Amino acid sequence: MTLDLVPPPALSPARALDSADALEARLREIGAARYHDRHPFHHLLHSGALNRGQVQAWALNRFYYQSMIPLKDAVVLSRLQDRETRREWRHRIEDHDGSAGEEGGIDRWLALTDALGLDRDYVVSAAGILPATRFAVDAYVDFVGRRSPLDAVASSLTELFAPAIHEQRIAGMLRHYDFVNPEVMRYFSTRLTQAPRDAGFALAYVRSNARTPEQREAVCQALIFKTNVLWVQLDALHHAYVTGHVPPGAFRPGQDGGTA
Amino acid sequence: MTLDLVPPPALSPARALDSADALEARLREIGAARYHDRHPFHHLLHSGALNRGQVQAWALNRFYYQSMIPLKDAVVLSRLQDRETRREWRHRIEDHDGSAGEEGGIDRWLALTDALGLDRDYVVSAAGILPATRFAVDAYVDFVGRRSPLDAVASSLTELFAPAIHEQRIAGMLRHYDFVNPEVMRYFSTRLTQAPRDAGFALAYVRSNARTPEQREAVCQALIFKTNVLWVQLDALHHAYVTGHVPPGAFRPGQDGGTA
Repeated sequence: MTLDLVPPPALSPARALDSADALEARLREIGAARYHDRHPFHHLLHSGALNRGQVQAWALNRFYYQSMIPLKDAVVLSRLQDRETRREWRHRIEDHDGSAGEEGGIDRWLALTDALGLDRDYVVSAAGILPATRFAVDAYVDFVGRRSPLDAVASSLTELFAPAIHEQRIAGMLRHYDFVNPEVMRYFSTRLTQAPRDAGFALAYVRSNARTPEQREAVCQALIFKTNVLWVQLDALHHAYVTGHVPPGAFRPGQDGGTA
Repeated sequence: MTLDLVPPPALSPARALDSADALEARLREIGAARYHDRHPFHHLLHSGALNRGQVQAWALNRFYYQSMIPLKDAVVLSRLQDRETRREWRHRIEDHDGSAGEEGGIDRWLALTDALGLDRDYVVSAAGILPATRFAVDAYVDFVGRRSPLDAVASSLTELFAPAIHEQRIAGMLRHYDFVNPEVMRYFSTRLTQAPRDAGFALAYVRSNARTPEQREAVCQALIFKTNVLWVQLDALHHAYVTGHVPPGAFRPGQDGGTA
């Protein structure tokens, strides 16, 4: 058995989560060790090492994640007793769903799948996604409905680490793929401003609402859960479309859902 | 990108599901194309190609599936309006949980993890399982609670195909691994008689309770869902422990949870 060439950094021994600052330091440590910017599939994607079919598979599967985010946020909204927090949270749904005459994140993702030559109906149907994508994304929606409102908010904290990966992705994909242009990458360029706002709010929320070491530990576990949701999706893509073990029924580049 | 050497057989064009016999034929076709006896990880397991750490990883992850089966069946039980069906279904819970003084399937699985040198508390905690294992298994429990009772029963139909794989596994593992003996394999030898009884009941149930082509199609989709639950678990094991991409936090043979 081979091992990854770059093992994740060892976490420091667990420190007492006795303050909001200790919590935030721990969250950033979790991000450094477990956020999916470390995943080999992203290194391949951003360095131009993937072919068009592999990028199609990524965009197709990731669309299912994108499409479920407004539903996830509607569940979170339904858990929040505080009206001020709901007012802040609901713009997340608007950001993804858009408004009449104004495109949202889902439209912007479809601009990307269009540019990759994927059929819109096929993308929206989710008929060709990997089962692991569905299980991971559905686990996220389930998590925010079953766990505490604090856990639900905390599970969004991966956005703290998103701008750096989006910058890498925009630059890397524009440089390396001739089927990509700035117009097509506008989902990510828009998220460069949206994600910090959202992450800042969620971070302030958990800093002030996690008041005991146990609650702060739960916040950390919620972030770990979410990093797993993201990591599993890339592991499944890597296994199917880099190693080459496409599971029964899933998208096969050049055969399903669009132009090769 | 490479592709699997043995692609699954193409399904015949969808025929009208206008009878119980047509349904059963279609279910057997789905099994032939998608059951996890076709998965490369099982070929490695049964042919002696895995090392002890890889077999440990398989048994550890599969324990989580085993441990959730009685909960899954309790959810199914809660969906069944018919008392006769409940009386038949409840022995599945007894088979896995055992009774006072009588071991059940979970005990038998722990006999296997013991023999592999895994620490019981570590196994039972599920602390080292792959996130994909958890998402897939939890999706199964969720499925039987949300879908129709007919779907819930139908999702158990993978047991139709289990005896053949269990026979291969018992023979293959006894032949190839010195850490395996008949005593340790008693989970599987017991299932050789339990699974056909269970599968026979579930098959008769869907044959008589799916009365329209639409209901028969739903039964087929439930079986496909379940084959995905099983396949995803092996894909994740293969990616982590054969290809060598162990995700953050998961079991590392020789480092976690028991003797190397």
